Amino acid sequence: MTLAEQVVLGDIRAAARLMRDIDDNRPNAVQELKQLYPHTGKAYIIGITGPPGAGKSTLVDQLTASFRKRGKKVGVVAIDPTSPFTGGAILGDRIRMNRHSCDEGVFIRSLATRGALGGLSRSTTDVGMVMDALGMDIVIIETVGVGQDEVDIVKAAHTTCVVMVPGLGDDIQAIKAGILEIGDVFVVNKADRDGADRTARELSTMLEMRNAPEGGWNPQVMKAEAQRGVGIEELTVEILAHRDFLFNSGTINDFLKERNRRHFMDILRDSLFRSAIDFMAADNTLDRVVDGMWSHSVDPYSAAEVVLSKMLTKKMKA
Amino acid sequence: MTLAEQVVLGDIRAAARLMRDIDDNRPNAVQELKQLYPHTGKAYIIGITGPPGAGKSTLVDQLTASFRKRGKKVGVVAIDPTSPFTGGAILGDRIRMNRHSCDEGVFIRSLATRGALGGLSRSTTDVGMVMDALGMDIVIIETVGVGQDEVDIVKAAHTTCVVMVPGLGDDIQAIKAGILEIGDVFVVNKADRDGADRTARELSTMLEMRNAPEGGWNPQVMKAEAQRGVGIEELTVEILAHRDFLFNSGTINDFLKERNRRHFMDILRDSLFRSAIDFMAADNTLDRVVDGMWSHSVDPYSAAEVVLSKMLTKKMKA
Repeated sequence: MTLAEQVVLGDIRAAARLMRDIDDNRPNAVQELKQLYPHTGKAYIIGITGPPGAGKSTLVDQLTASFRKRGKKVGVVAIDPTSPFTGGAILGDRIRMNRHSCDEGVFIRSLATRGALGGLSRSTTDVGMVMDALGMDIVIIETVGVGQDEVDIVKAAHTTCVVMVPGLGDDIQAIKAGILEIGDVFVVNKADRDGADRTARELSTMLEMRNAPEGGWNPQVMKAEAQRGVGIEELTVEILAHRDFLFNSGTINDFLKERNRRHFMDILRDSLFRSAIDFMAADNTLDRVVDGMWSHSVDPYSAAEVVLSKMLTKKMKA
Repeated sequence: MTLAEQVVLGDIRAAARLMRDIDDNRPNAVQELKQLYPHTGKAYIIGITGPPGAGKSTLVDQLTASFRKRGKKVGVVAIDPTSPFTGGAILGDRIRMNRHSCDEGVFIRSLATRGALGGLSRSTTDVGMVMDALGMDIVIIETVGVGQDEVDIVKAAHTTCVVMVPGLGDDIQAIKAGILEIGDVFVVNKADRDGADRTARELSTMLEMRNAPEGGWNPQVMKAEAQRGVGIEELTVEILAHRDFLFNSGTINDFLKERNRRHFMDILRDSLFRSAIDFMAADNTLDRVVDGMWSHSVDPYSAAEVVLSKMLTKKMKA
């Protein structure tokens, strides 16, 4: 039996192995994912993002418990921020999730994508698909950080929940401006701290000032204290309300088309790049270009055009 | 005269225009960059990264003043975090840099890369090259956030300065583990806050525990209060010490080779992807794939292989 077949039958160990193969960019992973694909599309994906220190892990832990209480199976994909460097240490704060470790209805996986070959958003989507095919009803994707990669990752989620925290300082205005566009639900966590009300009010005001499309979703700003479990039920209800909106309004169709488009493009981009690396390996092109750049006798733009014109059946437009 | 020729002659308006063209991914930008390339390689590039709220902008402002006092021309490239969403609003806290706005020896530019087509690390490198060719002695690249994109960006810097701040909370351990590998200098900013000594001590301990290569650079943990200008002179001296180390140890050669390799690969990846988009536009491939994914009759992995096999002169290995 292939790994994909085992995953579809609910085999957790096969799922873990396939996820590792995806994370390692093994060639067999693609074959398995092809088989898996028809069995995906059932899970509801929730993205959790926000700046470091906002308490996202604790919130994810609480949301997991909340959906478990509703009888849902929950998968968690945590994007490990140490990944580009250390090859994937598991987060210390993952340990908190231990209370779910004996629960067969919870599957937690840290994703540690290693370097440039595999796009982070692509492998996250792929790992989410494995959890989906495994039978998880809810898949929570948690990113650390607020960079462009993280934004790309949460765009694959049906509902994106942006976690803020009072008193993060100077950069916060800028971050707020950026995240307004991606959040379906906003949570001011650590709401017992000074300034929580102000942060929530500011967020609400900024959201109201947006030119939201007619009949569109109207994101709410919630308050929570994940550490003590306060506000979790309300947050869960709001996430489910957004899900209902997606399906009842028909917005889900546009969302899925856009998500499929991104996923395909991510795969294509990665495959093309890998082909280019194979192509250049044949005659040491890369070394020659880098040596030429060293002496400034070769510029990388012209060198890239030469490689492209050799690689592609159809000539590039200049 | 081309923009590139004007830039080399020190024309600031031409430089601003070329940077905008790079940011907008205009086709002419590549032709200009080809011309510019032989005139680059003189500037010393300093990367500033760290989590939101660490006070990076203020630190960059102070470092700019510090290098100006040393008679250096300073360029600043600020990666605008709002970019994927709002199309590039300029940061509010950029305003602080106003004190340099009448100084012809300072050139500040916010980079607002729009979406997926142009890789952020590639355009940052390109914009840095324009500042280099314009005659800036020091180019400071400031990122907001701690994602993989930000890491890729600072890898183009000769000296990477990681800015931390006391009391950021849960995620901080993870971030620390991640940033240890990229920092050449560490700064605990807002050092008047509670816990600053502890944060500095923890960082030092973690750095000591690393298996640093023999004869390698030994990163120091500095303390600063950028707001009041405390610790800036010491930081500047440490950055210059790292520069001296790079050149005296010969490490600079490996660094430049690696940077050139990354830059070329970034350009190649973007060009390939753009070719794929052109290629698919000819017969609506993208729409057909997305429709097929919708009904789950097409999987994106197989679809990507089909596109590749049509695009490439040499067939892919399965």
